[in-house]
Amino acid sequence: MYLARVYVTLKPTVNDPQGLTIEGSLKSLGFETVDSVRAGKYMEIRLDAASEAEAKSSVTEMCKKLLANPVIEDFRFELDEG
Amino acid sequence: MYLARVYVTLKPTVNDPQGLTIEGSLKSLGFETVDSVRAGKYMEIRLDAASEAEAKSSVTEMCKKLLANPVIEDFRFELDEG
Repeated sequence: MYLARVYVTLKPTVNDPQGLTIEGSLKSLGFETVDSVRAGKYMEIRLDAASEAEAKSSVTEMCKKLLANPVIEDFRFELDEG
Repeated sequence: MYLARVYVTLKPTVNDPQGLTIEGSLKSLGFETVDSVRAGKYMEIRLDAASEAEAKSSVTEMCKKLLANPVIEDFRFELDEG
C-alpha cells in the first residue's frame, strides 16, 4: 500500500480569486505582514501497487485525467510506502 | 520574506464527502487500485517577519483564526526563507 500526497496549484500566471480573498481576510484580521496568498488543493490517496514505479505512474495518470486541470494547474506529489 | 506552505486536512474521524466523490470518480475511470482518498486544502502564504520564530507564530495564529476550522480540521505548515 502506498500513500500519495498530491498538491495541485494554479499556474503562477493564472488569476487566483480565492487566494486574493484569503489575503484580504487575513489583512482585515490584522495580519498586515502578509504579502500574497495562493490557494490550492491537497489530497491524500491510498493505493495498492506492486512497486513504487507503478504507483508513481498511476498517480501521474490520475492527476492528468481527473485531479488537476492541466490548462491552468500544476501538480506534484510525494509517495510513501505503508 | 518567508514562504509558508499550509496544509489543512479534515480530522480522521470526520466524514469527507469530497474525498469519497474523488475516490468514486477515480474508480469509474479505471483506477481500481485506489483504496481511499481524503481531500484537503493547500495554501502558499508569503509574509514578512523579523525571524523564523515570528513567522511561525504568525502563521499558527492565521490557521487558528481563519484558515482552518479547529473543530473538524487539522493544520500543519512548513516555513522556508526567501
